[in-house]
Amino acid sequence: MTAAIAPADRLFSFVAGSAGQWRIDAMRCVAGEVLACAPMLSIIAGQTAEPPAASAWLLRGITSNERYVLREEKVALVSKQEGLGRARSSRAALIPIRKNAAWWALAHDECRAIFENQSAHIAIGMKFLPAIARRLHHCRDLGTGEPFDFLTWFEYAPGTRLRSKTWSSCCAHLRNGLTLSAKSTSASAGHCHETPTENMKGSPWNS
Amino acid sequence: MTAAIAPADRLFSFVAGSAGQWRIDAMRCVAGEVLACAPMLSIIAGQTAEPPAASAWLLRGITSNERYVLREEKVALVSKQEGLGRARSSRAALIPIRKNAAWWALAHDECRAIFENQSAHIAIGMKFLPAIARRLHHCRDLGTGEPFDFLTWFEYAPGTRLRSKTWSSCCAHLRNGLTLSAKSTSASAGHCHETPTENMKGSPWNS
Repeated sequence: MTAAIAPADRLFSFVAGSAGQWRIDAMRCVAGEVLACAPMLSIIAGQTAEPPAASAWLLRGITSNERYVLREEKVALVSKQEGLGRARSSRAALIPIRKNAAWWALAHDECRAIFENQSAHIAIGMKFLPAIARRLHHCRDLGTGEPFDFLTWFEYAPGTRLRSKTWSSCCAHLRNGLTLSAKSTSASAGHCHETPTENMKGSPWNS
Repeated sequence: MTAAIAPADRLFSFVAGSAGQWRIDAMRCVAGEVLACAPMLSIIAGQTAEPPAASAWLLRGITSNERYVLREEKVALVSKQEGLGRARSSRAALIPIRKNAAWWALAHDECRAIFENQSAHIAIGMKFLPAIARRLHHCRDLGTGEPFDFLTWFEYAPGTRLRSKTWSSCCAHLRNGLTLSAKSTSASAGHCHETPTENMKGSPWNS
């Protein structure tokens, strides 16, 4: 029997401001509303009613069940992936994404086709395991009027290399992916708005 | 382009107490925690911070994108279904459901197989359209520690008959379904806990 995780333990707030565990080295907005610049980022687990004083912004998200992954893919991912908080993972990236109303009106087979064939989410993700650890947070159904639909958090070691490529060159590759992208800095925050037809375009960062 | 619906417009609270638009005629608990008895039910759209004074319970849910339905099925459902609030729909049922941790750990193909083959959600649902109008609310990812994962609300006219069967006899049929069930009363509230292996058992009401 799998143990249930309480909702409060699945909820995380990302708070940008003058203090935090992560230093923000770069921010890049591909599309949509620009997040205010800030020097530091905190990740707060559990309920956060209000942003701490003097924060630039607060983004909330909740981890949830997987919506697209098949059993075979899940087994393959779980066998390779590692968790957040590894001692060497001193680099991170936060990718907030908002999908448009046309995406949310798609049927499941249409979403899955984009996810699998066009964005190649799982195939690309597998290449980066276990070097990159990842946690996906859902925001759209929190009911709090969050500005984004998803927040994806990536952690990795400085100088992370994937086969013959550096993480930086992988970013160039990921420019054609959906969300996976990062810069080899202490923490990066970027965001983009996606549409079903535009999701092959634009990574949050240039390589 | 499909218009986006603001989160606050997708959020609903079901409040049981001494006042409300709906009279509760029957409550039945199949499994799990019993909801306190109350004479009336209110449905409040939008954010509801706290339950109104003297309320017996408050359950929150948010409408969201469909998680399992394929395009072909969606087209078929949309072509037959009608909305809530029809003048003749003076009967309703509320079915709160909680799924167990094993369900939430399933991969998407496993959920879909149960949804399609075992529970026959869409095939059963189609039989009852347009007589029964339905709205599904998600609770699990609200982050508010809701006691259920889904709230399904059904509305129909008194004496609703489906082909040669009465709604009551359909309930007997639905005893083997996942969520669809109701009693021909002004409003009914029942709830059950489901598991992947048990979801063929137990409808919230006897026929």
